Amino acid sequence: MEAVKATAEGTTTIETRKVKAFGTEASTAPLQPLNIQRRTPTPYDVEIEILFCGVCHSDLHTVRNEWHGTVYPCVPGHEIVGKIVSVGSHVRKFKTGDLAAVGCLVDSCRQCDYCKDGLEQYCEKGNTGTYNSPDKYLGTRTYGGYSESIVVDEAFVLRIPENLDLAATAPLLCAGITTYSPLRHWKVKSGQKVGIVGIGGLGHMAVKLAKAMGAEVIVYTTSPSKFEDAKRLGADDVVLSKDESQMQRYAGKLHFVLDAVSAQHDINAYLRLLRVDGSLALVGAPEHPLPVAAFSLIPSRRSFSGSMIGGIPETQEMLDFCGKHNIVSDIEMINIQEINEAYEHLLKGDVKYRFVIDMKSIKR
Amino acid sequence: MEAVKATAEGTTTIETRKVKAFGTEASTAPLQPLNIQRRTPTPYDVEIEILFCGVCHSDLHTVRNEWHGTVYPCVPGHEIVGKIVSVGSHVRKFKTGDLAAVGCLVDSCRQCDYCKDGLEQYCEKGNTGTYNSPDKYLGTRTYGGYSESIVVDEAFVLRIPENLDLAATAPLLCAGITTYSPLRHWKVKSGQKVGIVGIGGLGHMAVKLAKAMGAEVIVYTTSPSKFEDAKRLGADDVVLSKDESQMQRYAGKLHFVLDAVSAQHDINAYLRLLRVDGSLALVGAPEHPLPVAAFSLIPSRRSFSGSMIGGIPETQEMLDFCGKHNIVSDIEMINIQEINEAYEHLLKGDVKYRFVIDMKSIKR
Repeated sequence: MEAVKATAEGTTTIETRKVKAFGTEASTAPLQPLNIQRRTPTPYDVEIEILFCGVCHSDLHTVRNEWHGTVYPCVPGHEIVGKIVSVGSHVRKFKTGDLAAVGCLVDSCRQCDYCKDGLEQYCEKGNTGTYNSPDKYLGTRTYGGYSESIVVDEAFVLRIPENLDLAATAPLLCAGITTYSPLRHWKVKSGQKVGIVGIGGLGHMAVKLAKAMGAEVIVYTTSPSKFEDAKRLGADDVVLSKDESQMQRYAGKLHFVLDAVSAQHDINAYLRLLRVDGSLALVGAPEHPLPVAAFSLIPSRRSFSGSMIGGIPETQEMLDFCGKHNIVSDIEMINIQEINEAYEHLLKGDVKYRFVIDMKSIKR
Repeated sequence: MEAVKATAEGTTTIETRKVKAFGTEASTAPLQPLNIQRRTPTPYDVEIEILFCGVCHSDLHTVRNEWHGTVYPCVPGHEIVGKIVSVGSHVRKFKTGDLAAVGCLVDSCRQCDYCKDGLEQYCEKGNTGTYNSPDKYLGTRTYGGYSESIVVDEAFVLRIPENLDLAATAPLLCAGITTYSPLRHWKVKSGQKVGIVGIGGLGHMAVKLAKAMGAEVIVYTTSPSKFEDAKRLGADDVVLSKDESQMQRYAGKLHFVLDAVSAQHDINAYLRLLRVDGSLALVGAPEHPLPVAAFSLIPSRRSFSGSMIGGIPETQEMLDFCGKHNIVSDIEMINIQEINEAYEHLLKGDVKYRFVIDMKSIKR
């Protein structure tokens, strides 16, 4: 099968081939098997056989059109690890047989100041997401990792440290970088007290990463049932956020807070934990605006900030850091046929802490 | 008259003397003449004859108990310039006859990390404000600049550049440092675009200071009537904030926004003006919490921050900077007997841009 691509140089014919995937045809439909077209590798592309793909809450938001803008069919998945099965003639970083990973981004303009700084996630022209973004080659939408294989420009493909468990590495590509990037940007280090709000897919990674950066880690959770697990993950202390007196324990004492909660919550209660010049970075995205009192910020020069995934160089840095510190995600493995059931567990927060799809199940 | 002070060394007798002032005895009472006690200078104190005192909106909030916690009688005023009339035996920085200034702070613990870093405004034990703070010497409250004279430890007294108009220098001690400090902290410099929201006592200083730091300055105002004046103050461009299409002009283009508006306003409209990694610093304090959308912050790693006055070293730096760049406040001079009327104008925003009291009027 063929598709046509218009470029500045003229019209180029792009060959494609049919690939098995799982996705939806409508916001209310369950995920089911479907076929998609992948381009054959251009000179700069690698083709990856997908071995494992993590299940991110964004997948669910997108297939159900909860953030609007979903174009169907939709094939989600942006926590991809696999093995390279073919490479284009100009590919330098990879060879057939290498392990490789793809995260939330598969392209960007590569020319704006942000792209040049390795901040492709903030590309001025808009980055190309791994799924549900306009596909520059085929004119369709991009299709993600719930599929047999994917073809990506090598510039957006990451190397995987040899020592890490491959399935448990998949969630690093979104949950890992989303928490690593703000911890690095706000310079978390030894001697600092860092609060992590919410222990889920993102939060459990944040605990491990902040601990490996040398910080004293305090976890904030609404569930007493998560206390023990937070400690096992590396937390130095755990605070029940519903308990006003426990919330006083670190008031004005934290250097940084990473807030991974997507539900509505009182952000002022967490801003008040910060020292002078401290920042709270939001990585979860509550649906409604969060009321912020001026006096939560002004008297201690605090900042309420946000952060979104990470750029390609920093994603590689994160993977290398995880290799060095032997950090992976806590996962529950599923087959692709169980994906709709897994989404129901995800909605209830009933997963420790990330579902990962064993993609060989798609070949059945 | 005498007062007694308990110190670690034992009990010290502090001599006081009666000083003419203007203040209130209750939240609903107008300001009127009253007498207060000032300590005679200790070995580290200087006594300043107050020549001019700026009128800050905080004065009005405090005398009317709008921030609660006001203890009466209350004598406001923390934009103080004057002449030193006596010095304690250990005073080294000043001599009788010198010009001197006092801002929002007259003391702090001087031992916590913040004080040691010159951030006395964020003192862990709580700083001693120039008015309505517990007076460590007399056990009363501190009394501010609406008075004949003030006695302050030289460590909290500033030098005034010789070249500046003295009356117009007074507002630098609060309006000046409150805007200078965040502009410096967030490293405003040449080559940057900086938004200033609101043109009043604070905003008009911010325009002058940001311009002197080399930034391209864009003023945001709700009043078309302020366009011309904003340009006169140095703005490169002025945007009518009520006009949605004008608000698009710098969307995603500003490096920093200083928000000096105390009324409720949509902070998301200003956050969206920021580039990646940009900060909006709030120096006005709206009464009610401001709703902040997660998507105003996350997709460009923006920060919503606050800032409060400045420490003593930075206040001196600001005065020296203003001396070098010949920057003072735009003022309207009043006599102390006109203070109640001036407050009414202040409430209507009807002042360009700061009332300054000619304190020789208090001698009448």
